Amino acid sequence: MLATEELLSISASGQWQEGMKTAITVRDFHPFHTDEPEEMGGTDTAPNPMEYVLGGLCGCTSIMINMIAGEMNFKFSELQVSAAGTIDPRGILGTAEVSPHFQEVKQTIRLKTGETQQRVEELRRQVEKRCPAINLFRDAKIKPQTVWEKN
Amino acid sequence: MLATEELLSISASGQWQEGMKTAITVRDFHPFHTDEPEEMGGTDTAPNPMEYVLGGLCGCTSIMINMIAGEMNFKFSELQVSAAGTIDPRGILGTAEVSPHFQEVKQTIRLKTGETQQRVEELRRQVEKRCPAINLFRDAKIKPQTVWEKN
Repeated sequence: MLATEELLSISASGQWQEGMKTAITVRDFHPFHTDEPEEMGGTDTAPNPMEYVLGGLCGCTSIMINMIAGEMNFKFSELQVSAAGTIDPRGILGTAEVSPHFQEVKQTIRLKTGETQQRVEELRRQVEKRCPAINLFRDAKIKPQTVWEKN
Repeated sequence: MLATEELLSISASGQWQEGMKTAITVRDFHPFHTDEPEEMGGTDTAPNPMEYVLGGLCGCTSIMINMIAGEMNFKFSELQVSAAGTIDPRGILGTAEVSPHFQEVKQTIRLKTGETQQRVEELRRQVEKRCPAINLFRDAKIKPQTVWEKN
Protein backbone atom coordinates (compact mmCIF):
# COMPACT_ATOMS: atom_id res chain seq x y z
CA MET A 1 0.00 0.00 0.00
CA LEU A 2 0.85 3.61 -0.43
CA ALA A 3 3.18 4.93 2.25
CA THR A 4 1.77 8.18 3.57
CA GLU A 5 4.77 9.43 5.49
CA GLU A 6 6.86 10.36 2.48
CA LEU A 7 6.51 12.28 -0.75
CA LEU A 8 6.13 10.32 -3.98
CA SER A 9 8.81 11.21 -6.53
CA ILE A 10 7.98 10.77 -10.20
CA SER A 11 9.91 11.71 -13.29
CA ALA A 12 10.16 11.49 -17.06
CA SER A 13 12.82 12.43 -19.57
CA GLY A 14 12.73 13.30 -23.23
CA GLN A 15 15.39 12.82 -25.88
CA TRP A 16 14.80 15.07 -28.88
CA GLN A 17 15.08 13.07 -32.09
CA GLU A 18 14.40 15.38 -35.03
CA GLY A 19 11.91 18.07 -35.93
CA MET A 20 8.95 17.84 -33.56
CA LYS A 21 9.65 14.25 -32.49
CA THR A 22 10.83 13.35 -28.98
CA ALA A 23 11.27 9.96 -27.29
CA ILE A 24 9.98 9.99 -23.70
CA THR A 25 11.29 7.57 -21.08
CA VAL A 26 9.58 6.77 -17.77
CA ARG A 27 11.36 4.40 -15.41
CA ASP A 28 12.38 1.28 -17.36
CA PHE A 29 9.31 1.19 -19.60
CA HIS A 30 9.70 1.13 -23.36
CA PRO A 31 9.90 4.78 -24.52
CA PHE A 32 6.88 6.44 -26.08
CA HIS A 33 7.02 9.28 -28.58
CA THR A 34 5.51 12.71 -28.91
CA ASP A 35 5.16 14.32 -32.32
CA GLU A 36 2.89 16.90 -33.95
CA PRO A 37 0.46 16.80 -36.87
CA GLU A 38 1.81 18.04 -40.18
CA GLU A 39 0.03 21.39 -39.88
CA MET A 40 2.13 21.99 -36.74
CA GLY A 41 5.31 21.11 -38.62
CA GLY A 42 5.58 17.53 -37.37
CA THR A 43 5.41 14.11 -38.99
CA ASP A 44 2.26 12.91 -37.16
CA THR A 45 3.73 9.62 -35.96
CA ALA A 46 2.41 9.89 -32.38
CA PRO A 47 0.09 11.95 -30.16
CA ASN A 48 1.29 15.44 -29.34
CA PRO A 49 2.38 16.39 -25.82
CA MET A 50 -0.84 18.08 -24.75
CA GLU A 51 -2.78 15.04 -25.96
CA TYR A 52 -0.65 13.00 -23.53
CA VAL A 53 -1.51 15.52 -20.83
CA LEU A 54 -5.23 15.01 -21.57
CA GLY A 55 -4.61 11.25 -21.69
CA GLY A 56 -3.01 11.51 -18.25
CA LEU A 57 -6.08 13.41 -17.05
CA CYS A 58 -8.32 10.58 -18.32
CA GLY A 59 -6.14 7.86 -16.77
CA CYS A 60 -5.84 9.69 -13.46
CA THR A 61 -9.59 10.21 -13.23
CA SER A 62 -10.16 6.53 -14.02
CA ILE A 63 -7.74 5.41 -11.30
CA MET A 64 -9.23 7.71 -8.70
CA ILE A 65 -12.75 6.50 -9.53
CA ASN A 66 -11.59 2.91 -9.11
CA MET A 67 -9.74 3.68 -5.87
CA ILE A 68 -12.51 5.68 -4.23
CA ALA A 69 -15.22 3.29 -5.46
CA GLY A 70 -13.28 0.58 -3.60
CA GLU A 71 -13.32 2.65 -0.39
CA MET A 72 -17.07 3.24 -0.77
CA ASN A 73 -17.90 -0.32 -1.85
CA PHE A 74 -19.38 1.37 -4.92
CA LYS A 75 -19.97 -1.16 -7.70
CA PHE A 76 -19.58 -0.41 -11.39
CA SER A 77 -18.96 -2.59 -14.41
CA GLU A 78 -17.84 -0.13 -17.09
CA LEU A 79 -16.12 3.23 -17.06
CA GLN A 80 -15.10 5.60 -19.82
CA VAL A 81 -13.46 8.98 -19.29
CA SER A 82 -12.95 11.44 -22.11
CA ALA A 83 -11.43 14.92 -22.15
CA ALA A 84 -11.42 17.57 -24.86
CA GLY A 85 -9.68 20.93 -24.75
CA THR A 86 -9.19 23.99 -26.89
CA ILE A 87 -5.95 25.90 -27.32
CA ASP A 88 -5.51 29.33 -28.88
CA PRO A 89 -2.50 28.87 -31.19
CA ARG A 90 -1.56 32.55 -30.93
CA GLY A 91 -0.19 31.84 -27.45
CA ILE A 92 2.15 29.21 -28.85
CA LEU A 93 3.15 31.38 -31.79
CA GLY A 94 3.70 34.37 -29.52
CA THR A 95 1.46 36.58 -31.66
CA ALA A 96 -1.06 37.54 -28.96
CA GLU A 97 -1.06 37.87 -25.19
CA VAL A 98 -3.21 34.79 -24.59
CA SER A 99 -2.47 31.66 -22.59
CA PRO A 100 -0.62 29.04 -24.66
CA HIS A 101 -2.42 26.21 -22.88
CA PHE A 102 -6.07 25.27 -22.61
CA GLN A 103 -8.82 27.85 -22.97
CA GLU A 104 -11.23 25.24 -21.68
CA VAL A 105 -11.43 21.54 -20.99
CA LYS A 106 -14.57 19.41 -21.03
CA GLN A 107 -14.50 16.06 -19.34
CA THR A 108 -17.15 13.36 -19.62
CA ILE A 109 -17.30 10.37 -17.27
CA ARG A 110 -19.60 7.50 -18.23
CA LEU A 111 -20.23 4.91 -15.54
CA LYS A 112 -22.27 1.74 -15.87
CA THR A 113 -23.58 1.20 -12.38
CA GLY A 114 -26.71 0.31 -10.43
CA GLU A 115 -25.75 2.69 -7.59
CA THR A 116 -28.02 5.62 -6.70
CA GLN A 117 -27.46 9.13 -8.06
CA GLN A 118 -26.64 10.22 -4.50
CA ARG A 119 -23.81 7.68 -4.32
CA VAL A 120 -22.57 8.78 -7.76
CA GLU A 121 -22.48 12.36 -6.47
CA GLU A 122 -20.50 11.31 -3.40
CA LEU A 123 -18.03 9.45 -5.62
CA ARG A 124 -17.75 12.49 -7.87
CA ARG A 125 -17.13 14.84 -4.95
CA GLN A 126 -14.28 12.70 -3.63
CA VAL A 127 -12.73 12.17 -7.06
CA GLU A 128 -12.81 15.87 -7.90
CA LYS A 129 -11.29 16.71 -4.52
CA ARG A 130 -8.50 14.10 -4.59
CA CYS A 131 -7.57 13.50 -8.25
CA PRO A 132 -4.08 14.92 -8.98
CA ALA A 133 -4.72 15.68 -12.65
CA ILE A 134 -8.17 17.25 -12.20
CA ASN A 135 -6.73 19.53 -9.51
CA LEU A 136 -3.73 20.47 -11.66
CA PHE A 137 -6.20 21.79 -14.24
CA ARG A 138 -8.41 23.46 -11.64
CA ASP A 139 -5.47 25.17 -9.98
CA ALA A 140 -4.42 26.47 -13.41
CA LYS A 141 -7.88 28.12 -13.49
CA ILE A 142 -9.07 26.08 -16.45
CA LYS A 143 -12.38 25.31 -14.71
CA PRO A 144 -13.02 21.94 -16.38
CA GLN A 145 -16.65 21.38 -17.23
CA THR A 146 -17.31 17.88 -15.97
CA VAL A 147 -20.30 15.77 -16.92
CA TRP A 148 -20.97 12.49 -15.11
CA GLU A 149 -23.30 10.13 -16.93
CA LYS A 150 -24.69 7.04 -15.28
CA ASN A 151 -26.30 4.23 -17.18
CA MET B 1 1.41 25.73 -41.19
CA LEU B 2 -0.60 26.40 -38.08
CA ALA B 3 -3.78 28.38 -38.77
CA THR B 4 -4.00 31.22 -36.28
CA GLU B 5 -7.61 32.23 -36.80
CA GLU B 6 -9.15 29.26 -35.05
CA LEU B 7 -8.81 27.35 -31.79
CA LEU B 8 -7.04 24.01 -31.82
CA SER B 9 -9.21 21.21 -30.45
CA ILE B 10 -7.50 18.21 -28.89
CA SER B 11 -8.90 15.26 -27.04
CA ALA B 12 -8.21 11.88 -25.47
CA SER B 13 -10.39 9.15 -24.07
CA GLY B 14 -9.82 6.40 -21.57
CA GLN B 15 -11.46 3.00 -21.32
CA TRP B 16 -11.07 1.51 -17.84
CA GLN B 17 -9.90 -2.09 -18.08
CA GLU B 18 -9.46 -3.45 -14.55
CA GLY B 19 -7.97 -2.28 -11.30
CA MET B 20 -5.73 0.71 -11.95
CA LYS B 21 -5.31 0.01 -15.67
CA THR B 22 -6.84 2.21 -18.38
CA ALA B 23 -6.40 2.20 -22.17
CA ILE B 24 -6.04 5.72 -23.57
CA THR B 25 -6.93 6.55 -27.15
CA VAL B 26 -5.82 9.67 -29.02
CA ARG B 27 -7.11 10.12 -32.58
CA ASP B 28 -6.44 6.91 -34.52
CA PHE B 29 -3.15 6.07 -32.83
CA HIS B 30 -2.64 2.71 -31.19
CA PRO B 31 -3.88 3.05 -27.57
CA PHE B 32 -1.41 3.46 -24.75
CA HIS B 33 -2.01 2.38 -21.18
CA THR B 34 -1.80 3.95 -17.77
CA ASP B 35 -1.31 1.79 -14.70
CA GLU B 36 0.18 2.21 -11.22
CA PRO B 37 3.06 0.56 -9.37
CA GLU B 38 2.13 -2.27 -7.04
CA GLU B 39 2.48 -0.08 -3.93
CA MET B 40 -0.33 2.06 -5.38
CA GLY B 41 -2.48 -1.01 -5.94
CA GLY B 42 -1.72 -1.44 -9.65
CA THR B 43 0.02 -4.06 -11.75
CA ASP B 44 2.91 -1.82 -12.93
CA THR B 45 2.51 -2.60 -16.63
CA ALA B 46 2.80 1.03 -17.81
CA PRO B 47 3.64 4.54 -16.60
CA ASN B 48 1.13 6.14 -14.30
CA PRO B 49 -1.00 9.10 -15.41
CA MET B 50 1.07 11.82 -13.77
CA GLU B 51 4.19 10.33 -15.35
CA TYR B 52 2.46 10.84 -18.71
CA VAL B 53 1.73 14.42 -17.67
CA LEU B 54 5.44 14.94 -16.93
CA GLY B 55 6.27 13.18 -20.21
CA GLY B 56 3.96 15.62 -21.97
CA LEU B 57 5.81 18.47 -20.26
CA CYS B 58 9.13 17.13 -21.56
CA GLY B 59 7.82 16.61 -25.10
CA CYS B 60 6.13 20.01 -25.18
CA THR B 61 9.30 21.78 -24.02
CA SER B 62 11.30 19.89 -26.64
CA ILE B 63 8.92 20.90 -29.43
CA MET B 64 8.86 24.54 -28.38
CA ILE B 65 12.67 24.64 -28.24
CA ASN B 66 12.82 23.21 -31.74
CA MET B 67 10.15 25.58 -33.08
CA ILE B 68 11.58 28.75 -31.52
CA ALA B 69 15.16 27.76 -32.37
CA GLY B 70 13.98 27.60 -35.97
CA GLU B 71 12.57 31.13 -35.76
CA MET B 72 15.83 32.40 -34.24
CA ASN B 73 18.10 30.43 -36.56
CA PHE B 74 19.51 28.99 -33.32
CA LYS B 75 21.57 25.87 -34.02
CA PHE B 76 21.76 22.88 -31.70
CA SER B 77 22.67 19.25 -32.25
CA GLU B 78 21.36 17.51 -29.13
CA LEU B 79 18.57 18.20 -26.66
CA GLN B 80 17.41 16.40 -23.56
CA VAL B 81 14.58 17.55 -21.31
CA SER B 82 13.85 15.90 -17.98
CA ALA B 83 11.24 16.64 -15.34
CA ALA B 84 10.86 15.36 -11.81
CA GLY B 85 8.06 16.11 -9.39
CA THR B 86 6.98 15.28 -5.87
CA ILE B 87 3.44 14.49 -4.76
CA ASP B 88 2.15 14.32 -1.18
CA PRO B 89 0.10 11.09 -1.15
CA ARG B 90 -2.12 12.37 1.65
CA GLY B 91 -3.88 14.58 -0.91
CA ILE B 92 -4.73 11.52 -3.01
CA LEU B 93 -5.77 9.49 0.02
CA GLY B 94 -7.85 12.37 1.36
CA THR B 95 -6.15 12.20 4.76
CA ALA B 96 -4.81 15.78 4.84
CA GLU B 97 -5.76 19.11 3.31
CA VAL B 98 -2.84 19.21 0.89
CA SER B 99 -2.83 19.45 -2.88
CA PRO B 100 -3.09 16.03 -4.54
CA HIS B 101 -0.83 17.10 -7.40
CA PHE B 102 2.74 18.30 -7.52
CA GLN B 103 4.38 19.96 -4.55
CA GLU B 104 7.22 20.95 -6.84
CA VAL B 105 8.58 20.17 -10.29
CA LYS B 106 12.20 20.46 -11.37
CA GLN B 107 12.98 20.59 -15.05
CA THR B 108 16.40 20.26 -16.62
CA ILE B 109 17.10 21.19 -20.25
CA ARG B 110 20.45 20.09 -21.72
CA LEU B 111 21.36 21.62 -25.07
CA LYS B 112 24.43 20.86 -27.15
CA THR B 113 25.03 24.10 -28.98
CA GLY B 114 27.75 26.55 -29.99
CA GLU B 115 25.39 29.50 -29.52
CA THR B 116 26.18 32.22 -26.96
CA GLN B 117 24.72 32.20 -23.46
CA GLN B 118 22.81 35.35 -24.40
CA ARG B 119 21.11 33.51 -27.27
CA VAL B 120 20.35 30.56 -24.98
CA GLU B 121 18.69 33.00 -22.57
CA GLU B 122 16.60 34.48 -25.37
CA LEU B 123 15.52 30.98 -26.45
CA ARG B 124 14.66 30.14 -22.84
CA ARG B 125 12.62 33.31 -22.39
CA GLN B 126 10.51 32.58 -25.46
CA VAL B 127 10.06 28.90 -24.61
CA GLU B 128 8.98 29.65 -21.05
CA LYS B 129 6.55 32.28 -22.28
CA ARG B 130 4.98 30.22 -25.09
CA CYS B 131 5.16 26.53 -24.05
CA PRO B 132 1.65 25.20 -23.26
CA ALA B 133 2.77 22.60 -20.72
CA ILE B 134 5.23 24.83 -18.84
CA ASN B 135 2.50 27.46 -18.50
CA LEU B 136 -0.07 24.92 -17.34
CA PHE B 137 2.26 24.11 -14.44
CA ARG B 138 3.08 27.76 -13.78
CA ASP B 139 -0.57 28.77 -13.77
CA ALA B 140 -1.21 25.98 -11.26
CA LYS B 141 1.34 27.78 -9.05
CA ILE B 142 3.81 24.92 -9.11
CA LYS B 143 6.68 27.29 -9.90
CA PRO B 144 8.87 24.82 -11.80
CA GLN B 145 12.54 25.19 -11.05
CA THR B 146 14.13 25.16 -14.48
CA VAL B 147 17.82 24.62 -15.16
CA TRP B 148 19.19 25.16 -18.66
CA GLU B 149 22.58 23.56 -19.27
CA LYS B 150 24.59 24.27 -22.39
CA ASN B 151 27.50 22.15 -23.52
